Amino acid sequence: MRANALEIFYAGLRAVEPDVCLRRHIHLAGNLLKIGKKTYNLTKFKDIYVVGFGKVSGFMGVVLEEILGERIRAGIINVQYGYHASCRIIKINMASHPIPDEAGIKGTTEIIQLLKKADENDLIICLISGGGSALFELPCDGITLIEIQMVTELLLKCGARIDEVNAIRKHISQVKGGRFVKMCKGEIVSLLLSDVVNDQLDAIASGPTAPDYSTFSDCEKIFIKYGLSQKIPDSIRAHIQKGLEGKVEETPKFIDKIFDKVYNVIIGNNRKALQASYKKATELGYHTAVISSYMNSEAREAAKAYGAIAKEIHRSGNPVKRPACVIAGGETTVVVRGKGKGGRNQEFVLSAAIEIDGLEDTVILSAGTDGIDGNTDAAGAIADGFTVSRAKSMAMEPEAYLGDNNSYSFFKELNDLFVTGPTKTNVMDIMLLLIT
Amino acid sequence: MRANALEIFYAGLRAVEPDVCLRRHIHLAGNLLKIGKKTYNLTKFKDIYVVGFGKVSGFMGVVLEEILGERIRAGIINVQYGYHASCRIIKINMASHPIPDEAGIKGTTEIIQLLKKADENDLIICLISGGGSALFELPCDGITLIEIQMVTELLLKCGARIDEVNAIRKHISQVKGGRFVKMCKGEIVSLLLSDVVNDQLDAIASGPTAPDYSTFSDCEKIFIKYGLSQKIPDSIRAHIQKGLEGKVEETPKFIDKIFDKVYNVIIGNNRKALQASYKKATELGYHTAVISSYMNSEAREAAKAYGAIAKEIHRSGNPVKRPACVIAGGETTVVVRGKGKGGRNQEFVLSAAIEIDGLEDTVILSAGTDGIDGNTDAAGAIADGFTVSRAKSMAMEPEAYLGDNNSYSFFKELNDLFVTGPTKTNVMDIMLLLIT
Repeated sequence: MRANALEIFYAGLRAVEPDVCLRRHIHLAGNLLKIGKKTYNLTKFKDIYVVGFGKVSGFMGVVLEEILGERIRAGIINVQYGYHASCRIIKINMASHPIPDEAGIKGTTEIIQLLKKADENDLIICLISGGGSALFELPCDGITLIEIQMVTELLLKCGARIDEVNAIRKHISQVKGGRFVKMCKGEIVSLLLSDVVNDQLDAIASGPTAPDYSTFSDCEKIFIKYGLSQKIPDSIRAHIQKGLEGKVEETPKFIDKIFDKVYNVIIGNNRKALQASYKKATELGYHTAVISSYMNSEAREAAKAYGAIAKEIHRSGNPVKRPACVIAGGETTVVVRGKGKGGRNQEFVLSAAIEIDGLEDTVILSAGTDGIDGNTDAAGAIADGFTVSRAKSMAMEPEAYLGDNNSYSFFKELNDLFVTGPTKTNVMDIMLLLIT
Repeated sequence: MRANALEIFYAGLRAVEPDVCLRRHIHLAGNLLKIGKKTYNLTKFKDIYVVGFGKVSGFMGVVLEEILGERIRAGIINVQYGYHASCRIIKINMASHPIPDEAGIKGTTEIIQLLKKADENDLIICLISGGGSALFELPCDGITLIEIQMVTELLLKCGARIDEVNAIRKHISQVKGGRFVKMCKGEIVSLLLSDVVNDQLDAIASGPTAPDYSTFSDCEKIFIKYGLSQKIPDSIRAHIQKGLEGKVEETPKFIDKIFDKVYNVIIGNNRKALQASYKKATELGYHTAVISSYMNSEAREAAKAYGAIAKEIHRSGNPVKRPACVIAGGETTVVVRGKGKGGRNQEFVLSAAIEIDGLEDTVILSAGTDGIDGNTDAAGAIADGFTVSRAKSMAMEPEAYLGDNNSYSFFKELNDLFVTGPTKTNVMDIMLLLIT
């Protein structure tokens, strides 16, 4: 069963890897470059520039080079440390995620410099993946990188949703929230690997090439909602205040004409992964249901709902009969209460393990498609109905580990961490429940 | 659509009303009384005594009188204030729920006195429904009612699960956790309307006729888990300590021979209601899925999962195609953070409304089958994809209401409270999602 769970997970992962995704959406025939629903006649463009930012955008760059080859004039892609990709033409910069660093700022400045060479007759292809928020950054005047780091960390730690974090990021940045488009003269095609629920263009990497739907007023509300108004740096508070007073320009909105020259294409997302997992589970003989790719609640509470479904399947065969496979995706949140180590997937599985305690033939796996869960070297964890009793027999109290956000130590001790190493993709998490 | 939601809810409710439930499980033919899988030859019994406790046990008494008539020698049932039922033979006592009061103690003492008349040749029929924990109570020596009230309130307010609350209740009571059986000489049939997930006999009304699976040691852990060890009354701390030291008898466990004379029958539960709702939804033309009858997570987080399913149905037709009806049940919890008014169902619907904001043709209803949600006169609430925008147009900020646990005021203002008045049943909550 555990082998089945892994197979179903990897089937999902494979469907959203850059080579599969890009080749599904890009076809070059002679001088005709078909991207998504549009066809670009390359004879009409002087040069093609490739830029990118995001954890796995470098791997997208490798595939794009394979497709376009020497047609690419030049390119720069900012990726996360450890995600080096072997490009020939495109330069790869490494920087920090999720908290941006100086290397990210430097790389962003390089990208802006490169695109100053591009004019109205050039085609700019952007390769965007999750993590682009941190990896593509140039703070607004008067705000330092450290202050951006502070506010990002404050937001991440208080359990703010990623779209809320991004609303703030967009309003204190010179490149996010569509502002990047204002810097480019050429026609823009953005190819995006979505790591956000609902594939909102303005949320992926804080939407450098997408119209923004958030406002300075939203920023103020978010700070109030999480009780951060007094905790954020003065410069950021002052900047938001200026925005509220109309003294700083708002991010461009969807009515803005600058977006006429932009084509955004989602090339892979969580749903695509879930569909592939669904197909694999069905092939393996499971009655399968995809519950949702929008999971965004607190990890431990989402896990209770998952556990509740497991119990119902055991009891009544609803919503699917045994052998059953229930698939969900999305990105849950963790409110840090304790001092332990873990990520949202490991915390999800720990909480689920408590719920399914004693249920036979029941396996739960949750893991990040990027192979990284929280500040750990695991992608997630795997558990079954006997995980809790096994832990107790080793004098480990699951509730205590959960209370301390210490899911990593819990599963490490049980040898139930799910480790993939960094993958080439990033479309949030996959959660699997198997009952035979 | 809202009318459909109500119809589907009421179909579920009807299936778990006392007359339907009791007549499904009890049949009298001559002197043969068939109850569940057992048949009792009434000529072998001297007298039949009926006792009961629980919010709606009085209504069960009315039906039992219709079935057994004068064969009932005498009876006493403790019900909640406002739940008077017109019995002819059985005396109805009114008392307080969820915090027990003196009237409850008095009624409990009366029941014990009545059963002192019963001997080995008598049949004792217990009619148990949710709320029996508060309505059937006699504190252990040295513990006062006020102290029981205090600890119950502390537990309810800190978000403890109902099985955790009951573990405590059982260990500071003379009648709960199977201890009541020790007081009875006759054969016992308990007919239970289940208001707990998994229909655990020891959890319904704190299991007066069921073996207990919790221990004094569990009680200690629960107090630690919720940080209550120093907040609980000294007498209760001392009593638990005595139990830990073996100086107070544990509650009887399933190996105890006293349970040989007891037959516990679940006559209605949440699943039965969901099945009936499922049938009705299908008749109305909806593609329907019962997700789980075990929902037990925090209301606002469970609602996010529900909203996540709604979004997926809109996007991909998973897990069911439109017109879709997703049914769940159980009992979520609320952690009181604010000062507002509301219940778990109203809070669930408010949180769900935020999640489904903007989705067309989408309705969410959640309500308690007992017709009462928290400390309000509503059973729950109903919302759709335009609830949030309607609220905002009335200068109401949904997030602020949710933050203040003020869902009642929110839905009252919108005229979207779902009010049934007290019903005759109590099998936790029904949550409905409809998308046409």
